[in-house]
Amino acid sequence: MKKLRRSGRLVDMTNYLLQHPHTLISLSYFSERYQSAKSSISEDLAIVKEIFESQSIGSLLTIPGASGGVKYIPMVNQDEAKQMIDQLCEKVEEPNRLLPGGYLYMMDILGNPRLMNQIGRLFAALFSHKKIDAVMTVATKGIPIAYAVGSYLDVPVSIVRRDHRVTEGSMVSINYVSGSSKRIQTMSLARRSLKPGSNVLIIDDFMKAGGTIRGMIDLLEEIQADVVGIGVLVESVDVEERLIDDYISITRLADVNSKEKRVKVEVGNFFEKLAEMKEETQ
Amino acid sequence: MKKLRRSGRLVDMTNYLLQHPHTLISLSYFSERYQSAKSSISEDLAIVKEIFESQSIGSLLTIPGASGGVKYIPMVNQDEAKQMIDQLCEKVEEPNRLLPGGYLYMMDILGNPRLMNQIGRLFAALFSHKKIDAVMTVATKGIPIAYAVGSYLDVPVSIVRRDHRVTEGSMVSINYVSGSSKRIQTMSLARRSLKPGSNVLIIDDFMKAGGTIRGMIDLLEEIQADVVGIGVLVESVDVEERLIDDYISITRLADVNSKEKRVKVEVGNFFEKLAEMKEETQ
Repeated sequence: MKKLRRSGRLVDMTNYLLQHPHTLISLSYFSERYQSAKSSISEDLAIVKEIFESQSIGSLLTIPGASGGVKYIPMVNQDEAKQMIDQLCEKVEEPNRLLPGGYLYMMDILGNPRLMNQIGRLFAALFSHKKIDAVMTVATKGIPIAYAVGSYLDVPVSIVRRDHRVTEGSMVSINYVSGSSKRIQTMSLARRSLKPGSNVLIIDDFMKAGGTIRGMIDLLEEIQADVVGIGVLVESVDVEERLIDDYISITRLADVNSKEKRVKVEVGNFFEKLAEMKEETQ
Repeated sequence: MKKLRRSGRLVDMTNYLLQHPHTLISLSYFSERYQSAKSSISEDLAIVKEIFESQSIGSLLTIPGASGGVKYIPMVNQDEAKQMIDQLCEKVEEPNRLLPGGYLYMMDILGNPRLMNQIGRLFAALFSHKKIDAVMTVATKGIPIAYAVGSYLDVPVSIVRRDHRVTEGSMVSINYVSGSSKRIQTMSLARRSLKPGSNVLIIDDFMKAGGTIRGMIDLLEEIQADVVGIGVLVESVDVEERLIDDYISITRLADVNSKEKRVKVEVGNFFEKLAEMKEETQ
């Protein structure tokens, strides 16, 4: 790479850091990349850090010492997150979303990659200080959110399947009871998709009683992996008995009135959990 | 937002542009965002453009006039793409990937969000000059690539389902013949997930005879949408008769020898297509 001036370095460095979240990058790497002295690189990084933090793009951790460097941690600003989630609530409340049986059509939301990235960043920011080795979700609708989270945390995604048309080698399967329909179902995961001892963040699009997520927790126990956290995009309050208690929800479906074609959506427990996490890390 | 100096503007502007690919951003927007004169913003953008283009991050189109502005178009550098695809070929050739029946375990590759983003960028760069309204794929394994492409093109993703456990309202279903197994299967798409007349890019992880993709083409015809292009991560050459002829493949599975546990993978037709597209746009 040819020698760059500060202005050029800042543009390239910003792009490089954004493409490598949660990755330690040594000063020497940048110093060689731009053929510039480490002192200049340090000054560049101070500028990037200031803007990343003031614009809530993320924080830039500086790790001192010979094996040190910088690490970009994606974050969100509380106000920006509030605005985003409020808009999402309004969107989910649109009455034409209501399908027979009280289901909601969600693919216009789940099918929007930019929106998925924003939601992925919310979860990634919330879990940024935890050691996470993988994100796990269940096919199909949880996948877009799980990849967005995995992308911001720079960890792989494991996809649990509900079908049997699977060509992924040895599988671990468990039966689980769908909390709302009370039916026994099967879910499977390719054995080699997760190492025993992995710290796993479970992500899904929707949670009612939590039967599917309970199933994923049992599956993780089966392969001796640990649950670090659980995040859902929408939780439903219309639940007799919830099968899991510690989870993070972005939005909450407070009421679905099919007859009057009315959907009531409110902000989930995201901000309470964000505050708790902030306290934990202080 | 407080007034920023050039160095700060460059960092924030780079982030903003990267988050908004294929989106026209007016000079006035940046001018207000940074409380800076349009002439300063123009100079900033010239610096960003130079680095984006020299580093093959993408091109920065300048649209003159009152309704003008800038647009970031993600691109790839030929050498970088070559290196990435060569590494991918090597990875797919790993003999422990071979499963009974000659299938390949691919979830370590498809489960890697960073790698998916790189592949998404390849397809997005190739189709950057086409008018695309949506990306379409079939559940489950095509989804990560489709979202990465959709993210770089800033268009929604439509997911075709092979199961019937679907709560997405009115569905369009078609029967298709799986090219390799010759069995009749069904695929469905939520009617409201694609508008008639949409220009659609079909993306999938694997193509053998092309029966699944043929099915998606028929489905698009059914809802009067148009196919702009077809992209697959891996194509197999072990095919008697291919059901589609115009597609782009990143890699090509040249030989699978289960007995000797050997997989031979080569670069697909990506670079030939890239050269064709470049000629078309000149």
